[in-house]
Amino acid sequence: MIIVLKPGVTQKQVEEFSRQLEKQNSVKVNAWYGEHSVVLGLLGDTAAVDIESIGAQDIVQSVKRVQEPYKKANRKFHPDDTVIDLGNGSAIGGGKLGIIAGPCSVECEEQIVQVAQDVKTAGAGFLRGGAFKPRTSPYAFQGLRAEGLELLRHARKQTGLPIVTEIMSPAHLVLFEDVDIIQVGARNMQNFELLKELGKCDKPILLKRGLANTIEELLMSAEYIMASGNSRVILCERGIRTFETMTRNTLDIAAVPLLKKLSHLPVVVDPSHASGISWLVEPLALAAVAAGADGLIIEVHNDPPHALSDGAQSLTPAQFEQLASRIREIAPLFGKELSVRQD
Amino acid sequence: MIIVLKPGVTQKQVEEFSRQLEKQNSVKVNAWYGEHSVVLGLLGDTAAVDIESIGAQDIVQSVKRVQEPYKKANRKFHPDDTVIDLGNGSAIGGGKLGIIAGPCSVECEEQIVQVAQDVKTAGAGFLRGGAFKPRTSPYAFQGLRAEGLELLRHARKQTGLPIVTEIMSPAHLVLFEDVDIIQVGARNMQNFELLKELGKCDKPILLKRGLANTIEELLMSAEYIMASGNSRVILCERGIRTFETMTRNTLDIAAVPLLKKLSHLPVVVDPSHASGISWLVEPLALAAVAAGADGLIIEVHNDPPHALSDGAQSLTPAQFEQLASRIREIAPLFGKELSVRQD
Amino acid sequence: MIIVLKPGVTQKQVEEFSRQLEKQNSVKVNAWYGEHSVVLGLLGDTAAVDIESIGAQDIVQSVKRVQEPYKKANRKFHPDDTVIDLGNGSAIGGGKLGIIAGPCSVECEEQIVQVAQDVKTAGAGFLRGGAFKPRTSPYAFQGLRAEGLELLRHARKQTGLPIVTEIMSPAHLVLFEDVDIIQVGARNMQNFELLKELGKCDKPILLKRGLANTIEELLMSAEYIMASGNSRVILCERGIRTFETMTRNTLDIAAVPLLKKLSHLPVVVDPSHASGISWLVEPLALAAVAAGADGLIIEVHNDPPHALSDGAQSLTPAQFEQLASRIREIAPLFGKELSVRQD
Amino acid sequence: MIIVLKPGVTQKQVEEFSRQLEKQNSVKVNAWYGEHSVVLGLLGDTAAVDIESIGAQDIVQSVKRVQEPYKKANRKFHPDDTVIDLGNGSAIGGGKLGIIAGPCSVECEEQIVQVAQDVKTAGAGFLRGGAFKPRTSPYAFQGLRAEGLELLRHARKQTGLPIVTEIMSPAHLVLFEDVDIIQVGARNMQNFELLKELGKCDKPILLKRGLANTIEELLMSAEYIMASGNSRVILCERGIRTFETMTRNTLDIAAVPLLKKLSHLPVVVDPSHASGISWLVEPLALAAVAAGADGLIIEVHNDPPHALSDGAQSLTPAQFEQLASRIREIAPLFGKELSVRQD
Repeated sequence: MIIVLKPGVTQKQVEEFSRQLEKQNSVKVNAWYGEHSVVLGLLGDTAAVDIESIGAQDIVQSVKRVQEPYKKANRKFHPDDTVIDLGNGSAIGGGKLGIIAGPCSVECEEQIVQVAQDVKTAGAGFLRGGAFKPRTSPYAFQGLRAEGLELLRHARKQTGLPIVTEIMSPAHLVLFEDVDIIQVGARNMQNFELLKELGKCDKPILLKRGLANTIEELLMSAEYIMASGNSRVILCERGIRTFETMTRNTLDIAAVPLLKKLSHLPVVVDPSHASGISWLVEPLALAAVAAGADGLIIEVHNDPPHALSDGAQSLTPAQFEQLASRIREIAPLFGKELSVRQD
Repeated sequence: MIIVLKPGVTQKQVEEFSRQLEKQNSVKVNAWYGEHSVVLGLLGDTAAVDIESIGAQDIVQSVKRVQEPYKKANRKFHPDDTVIDLGNGSAIGGGKLGIIAGPCSVECEEQIVQVAQDVKTAGAGFLRGGAFKPRTSPYAFQGLRAEGLELLRHARKQTGLPIVTEIMSPAHLVLFEDVDIIQVGARNMQNFELLKELGKCDKPILLKRGLANTIEELLMSAEYIMASGNSRVILCERGIRTFETMTRNTLDIAAVPLLKKLSHLPVVVDPSHASGISWLVEPLALAAVAAGADGLIIEVHNDPPHALSDGAQSLTPAQFEQLASRIREIAPLFGKELSVRQD
Repeated sequence: MIIVLKPGVTQKQVEEFSRQLEKQNSVKVNAWYGEHSVVLGLLGDTAAVDIESIGAQDIVQSVKRVQEPYKKANRKFHPDDTVIDLGNGSAIGGGKLGIIAGPCSVECEEQIVQVAQDVKTAGAGFLRGGAFKPRTSPYAFQGLRAEGLELLRHARKQTGLPIVTEIMSPAHLVLFEDVDIIQVGARNMQNFELLKELGKCDKPILLKRGLANTIEELLMSAEYIMASGNSRVILCERGIRTFETMTRNTLDIAAVPLLKKLSHLPVVVDPSHASGISWLVEPLALAAVAAGADGLIIEVHNDPPHALSDGAQSLTPAQFEQLASRIREIAPLFGKELSVRQD
Repeated sequence: MIIVLKPGVTQKQVEEFSRQLEKQNSVKVNAWYGEHSVVLGLLGDTAAVDIESIGAQDIVQSVKRVQEPYKKANRKFHPDDTVIDLGNGSAIGGGKLGIIAGPCSVECEEQIVQVAQDVKTAGAGFLRGGAFKPRTSPYAFQGLRAEGLELLRHARKQTGLPIVTEIMSPAHLVLFEDVDIIQVGARNMQNFELLKELGKCDKPILLKRGLANTIEELLMSAEYIMASGNSRVILCERGIRTFETMTRNTLDIAAVPLLKKLSHLPVVVDPSHASGISWLVEPLALAAVAAGADGLIIEVHNDPPHALSDGAQSLTPAQFEQLASRIREIAPLFGKELSVRQD
């Protein structure tokens, strides 16, 4: 960490401030006296140093972090890829491209089982489906909740596909004991109390980037989970909010190679939420694979026009089959192999 | 709600779709056959109609809402201002300008009591202070939690000021029974499970706008609380995230008159978080009052450089006193009177 | 165009307003009287109808365009792909993937000839190089201007590569007579006086999307050029400005398939400016091809650390060769063939 | 300027790089050898140092500017407020609050003269009116151009009000010789060739902030004009583009105090374009004055529903009169006095 002090500080102020920094943060401070300004360098583990509090000091002009503020998620300290492997071919990372597919909301047994069978046949390695649904309006369908989880388990039994579903409150954790991967939605990316609780459980967590969150903040939220003890985190880029209104969000495709370089955690892309338009899912999914994604999460519905949520962005099983086939075709060119469920 | 159908739809399709809409939504559908396209008009209560699901229909080209999707928060159905009056002069709305002041984090008894006394003397009607702190980094100070709430209650006892503090999880609600106003932070504005729980309690809720949330989404989150039974919601504009980096956020000053027109709920502004820079707090606070705000929430710390969080944006008690005095001076010109605590 | 009138308008007002609309816009207006509101439908060519002026009418609640406001750029009226073919293998569109490569700024004869030869050998079909440089600071290098154009012509003579370079003022047009493709930079996308002048010349125009411009605005700027008589426009996605600071801009990858669907014009992507980081150029370039781009524009410099501008995002010739080789490899999977210069 | 080098650089590399920096930039470089990294400090005038080119060096980890990159616009080097005083009471800055009012577009003699008289009577010190209009669509009304300028001169003759109008191309400068203040629109804020030409003329320039431009970039564009010789620049905040769609733009109210602190140039606010909604103009104008603005630019039309452009955001003369009266009332509380035209 580099701290530039304001012009005119005295040597005594510098020494006092340095001592205070060393005491509060277990770091070593070196001062460099320039002609017009003094620069301090902090050595040691600065991840816990509060950059805002330092910036608030009267004598400080500006502060700059040199090291990343995340440690457990940082590839520097963990060079090898983290792989989420649920067995029987369902894997994400380490050269395996995992496709998580299924409806936005679980609606009924017939729907979820049918979609699960269809996506498995087409090449999905995981089944997604929302039981607890975050909806902008309190008057919109809120999901089947506990019953939805029950139906997902049933669909897993029928197909063998591991299930991925979203949690919205720490209080629901007891219901998620039998879920394979717990998803944290974009709106909860900085629900820190939830993240801490998820850090105490032993399941992989699919963590979606928030609509207005930076790449660094996504990694800091992963760090919350990991610092609480759970190192199996999957990062998900799902589009950020910008001024463009033609798509629901703007897919930040550069986040994929950036996250892969900065972190060892696997990265998946959600082209369905990123675009909000079904015919855009295929080009965005292909672009994600080309950019280095380890997986995709895609909404598939047997009857999109009658879906209880997000119909506009859902693929039909036939469209999904075509997409999965395209991905199987191109994956090897990008050093990946489609993760295929074997039961 | 106006639905434009795609060119080439048959009269039979139009009739079938209209019947389906009427059945699902208890609305009446009128069809208008134009030369090149057919337009449907939905009459009745369309707040619960799922606009996305309609947009997903094969025969639909586009959908447009004519009525607002919120009802309980809507000024149309509740023309009179909602006033949050906690007695003894502490009020927000209805011509009373309430100032909520205090430190970002409660740190110790001495600090919170001292700041409480200072801000009360200067003209604050409410005491703020964070006990549970949402921090980007898991390694940063997370607040004193239950102990912080205890200290707030102690400061209230000493000064009479009602206390405003942030909740981060429904599980903590039991600890907030003795809090006067519960704050929902920007990162939790769409933590819908939390909003539903807050809708069941009998305390005023200060709801902050999320970093990437629209004005309509803020009103929909208020609607969540109100639809669950709690109509005492205070809306808070605290800046949105944009490309500008010189300030921490961009204060959307137009949100104040817009929210006042669209809703009957009181609107407060947080110039401290909006700017992140202490010397900007005064001009932004004055602008907020000029734009019609019903209140302000301002960070004040007895020793900003040593604050455990957000020091850079905190005012000293002396700076706050000057600001409160300026506000007292200008408020009458904007039809407001400073809410002053009387004990 | 659909116009929703305010509740309470009289039939006389509706008829008068309809007559006025028909008179001003050569359209036909149909009125649909609903229970609570009246909706007007405008039939005919509404591209020139001023949507803002209609929205300003006292009796209007809201207006919605049904047809796109662009015509000449619209694929609906021109289903076949526009191909920019400069002969000898240098083509963009129609299945040909054109790579435009070269330095940000032309610096000297040796530099531009060397880079031109290198990128040609590696597979570029066009040479780029800035002679007139838009720089944020008046104190930064502003380009070699007329001399830079001369050096580009020289490099073309040595290599046969057509040259692409940016214009910044209509007054410079006389100097661009011998340029093969004229580029309009992001900061000039809505320099309408410049666009009109470019519409009168007979050269292909590479039009870059502005930092804060929507996809529709990009198409409207293309329409400016086309409406003035020049139909050879190449659209360029180069990243938009968002809150994310890790990259220079945010590449809006979804713009590629959207522009391809809405328009017949070829679409190229600039991964160098989109990211601002040289090692991100390859993954973004691959993603662009996967998303359907017809071309790429890439900064290559023989000595990036000593480049007079944009060194941080420039590839070395060796890095570019590797990228071109990767693109040649994957292009066929996306229905494209690398456009290779043959001389 | 502070440059952090990558871990592992040798002393020889540091010395060589330092020498190179000193030679290229006429600065002095001090090196500070820390335990894990080396930090360089550049002393002297670093405004012209190319920060990107330094960041591109292989051995550089990151660069940070300590000094602002603008000099002539910088308050540090010019502590006193710049005042634009056109005589007879028409002034902006130095305690004078100037109101620039008039129609978006000049439409005909009757309109412009009528509006000019109305706004003068109400309290405007300047007349605005567009002759050259930047419109998104080539099919929209483009302004009366030279004829519009003629009509503005005529209105000035009738009322004595100095005229403010927008230029779109350096080629039109010859037509603007008799204009009092030349406006640069948001879309041309980084039309650097235009800025350079305006720097050579002797008229005040009203420079509007671009939709996606930072405060620093606005100051750099002012610096372009000033570096070319014209120091009379008025800065204008007119809203930036964000994700919020309820207003046309988002007024960045904090830009007002920030610009006033960073620069000595006067700052005006355009609440009409910032909001795009006529009833929002008053609260935003009052907020601007409260935040410290030196002036306002406001659209007034004698018949908004029939305005050829921007009718939705125009005030009627009666509404403007009420607004001017409110501003006259509150200005003294913010240390300002309304600039009133005296003829």
